[in-house]
Amino acid sequence: MIAGIELGGGKTVVAIGTATGLVQEEWRFPTTTPAETFGRALQWFAERGTPEAIGVAAFGPIGIVPGRPEYGKVIATPKPGWKDFSITGAIAEVFPAAKVTLDTDVNAAVLAEARLGAGQGVDDLAYITIGTGIGAGILSGGHLIHGALHPEFGHIKVPRCPGDEYPGICSFHKDCLEGLASGPSIAARWGQPAAELPRDHAAWDTEAWYLAHGVLSLLGVVSSARVIIGGGVSQAEGFHEKTERILKEIAAGYFVPLSASPYVVPPLLEQQAGIVGALLLTGI
Amino acid sequence: MIAGIELGGGKTVVAIGTATGLVQEEWRFPTTTPAETFGRALQWFAERGTPEAIGVAAFGPIGIVPGRPEYGKVIATPKPGWKDFSITGAIAEVFPAAKVTLDTDVNAAVLAEARLGAGQGVDDLAYITIGTGIGAGILSGGHLIHGALHPEFGHIKVPRCPGDEYPGICSFHKDCLEGLASGPSIAARWGQPAAELPRDHAAWDTEAWYLAHGVLSLLGVVSSARVIIGGGVSQAEGFHEKTERILKEIAAGYFVPLSASPYVVPPLLEQQAGIVGALLLTGI
Repeated sequence: MIAGIELGGGKTVVAIGTATGLVQEEWRFPTTTPAETFGRALQWFAERGTPEAIGVAAFGPIGIVPGRPEYGKVIATPKPGWKDFSITGAIAEVFPAAKVTLDTDVNAAVLAEARLGAGQGVDDLAYITIGTGIGAGILSGGHLIHGALHPEFGHIKVPRCPGDEYPGICSFHKDCLEGLASGPSIAARWGQPAAELPRDHAAWDTEAWYLAHGVLSLLGVVSSARVIIGGGVSQAEGFHEKTERILKEIAAGYFVPLSASPYVVPPLLEQQAGIVGALLLTGI
Repeated sequence: MIAGIELGGGKTVVAIGTATGLVQEEWRFPTTTPAETFGRALQWFAERGTPEAIGVAAFGPIGIVPGRPEYGKVIATPKPGWKDFSITGAIAEVFPAAKVTLDTDVNAAVLAEARLGAGQGVDDLAYITIGTGIGAGILSGGHLIHGALHPEFGHIKVPRCPGDEYPGICSFHKDCLEGLASGPSIAARWGQPAAELPRDHAAWDTEAWYLAHGVLSLLGVVSSARVIIGGGVSQAEGFHEKTERILKEIAAGYFVPLSASPYVVPPLLEQQAGIVGALLLTGI
């Protein structure tokens, strides 16, 4: 039995399926306290058997590098009770023999999109999500990038969009990429949430401008062949095309991978990417 | 017999040695035309035997991903005669049986520093060089990052240093990182070359500010455990410490890998990194 857990800030998804990403049965429920959330997830598995492998796709920051002291733990989060909670520890108590593979939600998503979605066959792929925050999962030469922790992409700095004087909403940096382009920053800057802004609103030019600069930084570091942008904020019609247009303008003929078209694309798996990726993690 | 070639814009270095990076004999000569440069290099090897493996560390942009149409070739360069020259083709004509491993000069340098220099034992290491241009080589989880081409790091965009109104010198982008912080941009902005600027000159604050923002972008994408900054411009006393100080200020408590100290360090191998890396490439 192969199992997957997608631990999101708002909801948790559990599934049993295959290491090739096929979901055979799944259940979604709200994320509450660590004890209650993992209690429900592991009980649901136990009712169905004993998993030999469990893939976990979790919100970050989280320790995903085996051997480091923070491995398996939620590192810092505004969610009460979660800081220092050991995900791998909670699983080992109930299923001590299960092989657990833990990664970030965005790494799980890029893996799922590379195997079964908008990046099929692409070994150098990035997945950027824009929602409450901004995150990135990266596949490089077929390997998921971890580094010393994992990418903390949302907090890089990009130039100011000309004319934009909004101070930024990040509680650490004010005007990092996330502070200038996350869902909450859009809502605070324009006085209404992204989902309610008409597609011809100036907000989308500003948003695409910031994302294009974020993609340029990513491209300059890992030379991705394709970039998927997902998450609630990215769903406005024409957003991916607009971002790609600005990206190619600012690249000005440089950055060889940009000769691909389309380069900036929406995800195919949408809500399923996290849990499909969690199952796929058991096979890597 | 193991051979290495470091092809630089100004000089070429050839060596015979071991796949563990030991140089047994080397020769340096100016890089001229492709035919003359490779003629001399391969003749020098032939006088010593027949290499079974040749590692090549070359200036970019260059095709380093096997299987792609541009593999082995210099892609675009201001150096006359080099565009479209096939490095792997030139070697195969003389030593058809040799196993050739080609990578960028900066990837060779990061590999050399990881094995024998300032990043020994660090599997997530970056090497940034500041000279005529700005480039980066990256080791991630022990793998050299290639992506669809290779990192073209110098051309990312970073915010303007407050008060700096210099337009930037990059012929593609004007004010990309390279356009604002390369050796030629320093010389043009301050009226004298970096090597002649005193260590308390304001130029170094501006320079460290831009590099700190470049490192932040790199860190946000690959979560490096340590960053080496080398190249002629980086040799001013105190430059690495100043860059690290600004980096930690703008990170504002975020970016977990920055808890390491020192985080931004000079190279140990200096002029030897390229050729040692070229030899090491034969062993990966």
